[in-house]
Amino acid sequence: MKRIMLTVAYDGTNYCGWQMEPTGLSVEEVLNKALSKRLNEDIRVKGVSRTDSGVHALANLCIFDTETPIPPEKICFAVNEVLPEDIVVRKSEEVPPDFHPRKCDSLKTYEYTLYHDSLPNPLVRHYTTYYYRRLDVQKMREGAAYLIGEHDFSSFCSAGSQAETKVRRITALEIEEEGTRICFRITGTGFLYNMVRIIVGTLLRTGTGFWPPEKVKEILEAKDRQAAGPKAPAEGLCLVEIRLFPEGFPSSL
Amino acid sequence: MKRIMLTVAYDGTNYCGWQMEPTGLSVEEVLNKALSKRLNEDIRVKGVSRTDSGVHALANLCIFDTETPIPPEKICFAVNEVLPEDIVVRKSEEVPPDFHPRKCDSLKTYEYTLYHDSLPNPLVRHYTTYYYRRLDVQKMREGAAYLIGEHDFSSFCSAGSQAETKVRRITALEIEEEGTRICFRITGTGFLYNMVRIIVGTLLRTGTGFWPPEKVKEILEAKDRQAAGPKAPAEGLCLVEIRLFPEGFPSSL
Repeated sequence: MKRIMLTVAYDGTNYCGWQMEPTGLSVEEVLNKALSKRLNEDIRVKGVSRTDSGVHALANLCIFDTETPIPPEKICFAVNEVLPEDIVVRKSEEVPPDFHPRKCDSLKTYEYTLYHDSLPNPLVRHYTTYYYRRLDVQKMREGAAYLIGEHDFSSFCSAGSQAETKVRRITALEIEEEGTRICFRITGTGFLYNMVRIIVGTLLRTGTGFWPPEKVKEILEAKDRQAAGPKAPAEGLCLVEIRLFPEGFPSSL
Repeated sequence: MKRIMLTVAYDGTNYCGWQMEPTGLSVEEVLNKALSKRLNEDIRVKGVSRTDSGVHALANLCIFDTETPIPPEKICFAVNEVLPEDIVVRKSEEVPPDFHPRKCDSLKTYEYTLYHDSLPNPLVRHYTTYYYRRLDVQKMREGAAYLIGEHDFSSFCSAGSQAETKVRRITALEIEEEGTRICFRITGTGFLYNMVRIIVGTLLRTGTGFWPPEKVKEILEAKDRQAAGPKAPAEGLCLVEIRLFPEGFPSSL
């Protein structure tokens, strides 16, 4: 018996999210079926990050145990043969039998990308959010600065969260502008339900001038979802990296 | 009566190409319906460039005549309201009543983009061609150099072309590599049926070492489609710009 970890990329457009739901098709379900078929065993993966409906990933992680004789690093090629083209296993590797990534300290990085122009671009519509209002990127950066560090993010969490504590640590939040592309890159020790999308929806209000950047501090302190901006649409969001620290976070972090 | 020129962007994935065909839905057809509905007239656009099935465009051009009171520069917003999200009119402008872009000298620029890695990326699958074989970009550039200038491109034209002459001029052919992205950017005075895709398919053979770069010269001289490489798939191709010269090409060109 070997424990295998997969790095999975997917276009979330046609899925109800990572996790199995009574309604809609999930990435997890399609992956379980493909692995079970290809490895000829009943496989049920355990995922690390539950992305929402319509959200993309370049590198989500999951584990499962298997008796397959296929070498661990070749499993990705085997399963990709039976996966639909919107899900690709980018890497497969053996991990210790007691390894569970959800029990490791981790840093997750999400990118939220806007297509910012007076008219939409059909070639990027599935992977960016179209936004036409004038934005002051510097003001959004000023607002973002209040979110960096350890805070109670209750104001940035949708109802329905099962999290025991709403305290999370954001280690980096950068906003890059390049032509018509504005990208919010957020790294943290964990994210609450819809947290990245509510952060982006809130920062957009500082970018348009609807709120001054200092309002973000007030919103944090309110610990009330009603205080923050609306959640930004799913299509602009992508989980780009998960870094695991099996020995715990280094003290430098 | 005013003559209007539109700049049109589209995701070609779900279309049989720009032009109306007995089978499949064309971009032209969808655009005619949307314009006719929105302007309350029977509109039939005349396109500048017939892109193939599955090929994308950021800036194809077409013209039509209309009696609409909507100001020319607002027509794009009006028609976008009724177009599907994979077709966007990026600009609308009035042109002289005798203006016909197909009668102007023009320079067209296409980009052909590869996603070059050991495994595919589902987030770029509709707009790039996945290619995993090792490529020597320098060798592709050496092969490309033979194509620049005025040549008979018979070897780079699929059967079914109605072109009277197969002589065309390529003014630039650059190949850029940036991480997993390799982009062929080709500008010319006109392109034969499947010409860009056959050029890319041929240059890929010089990139893998299957053919030496000098082979491209022989292929040109053969004036025989059988001599060239296969045509590369449609999804990596995008018409990015058409420059019109109503007064004829400047002498510097």
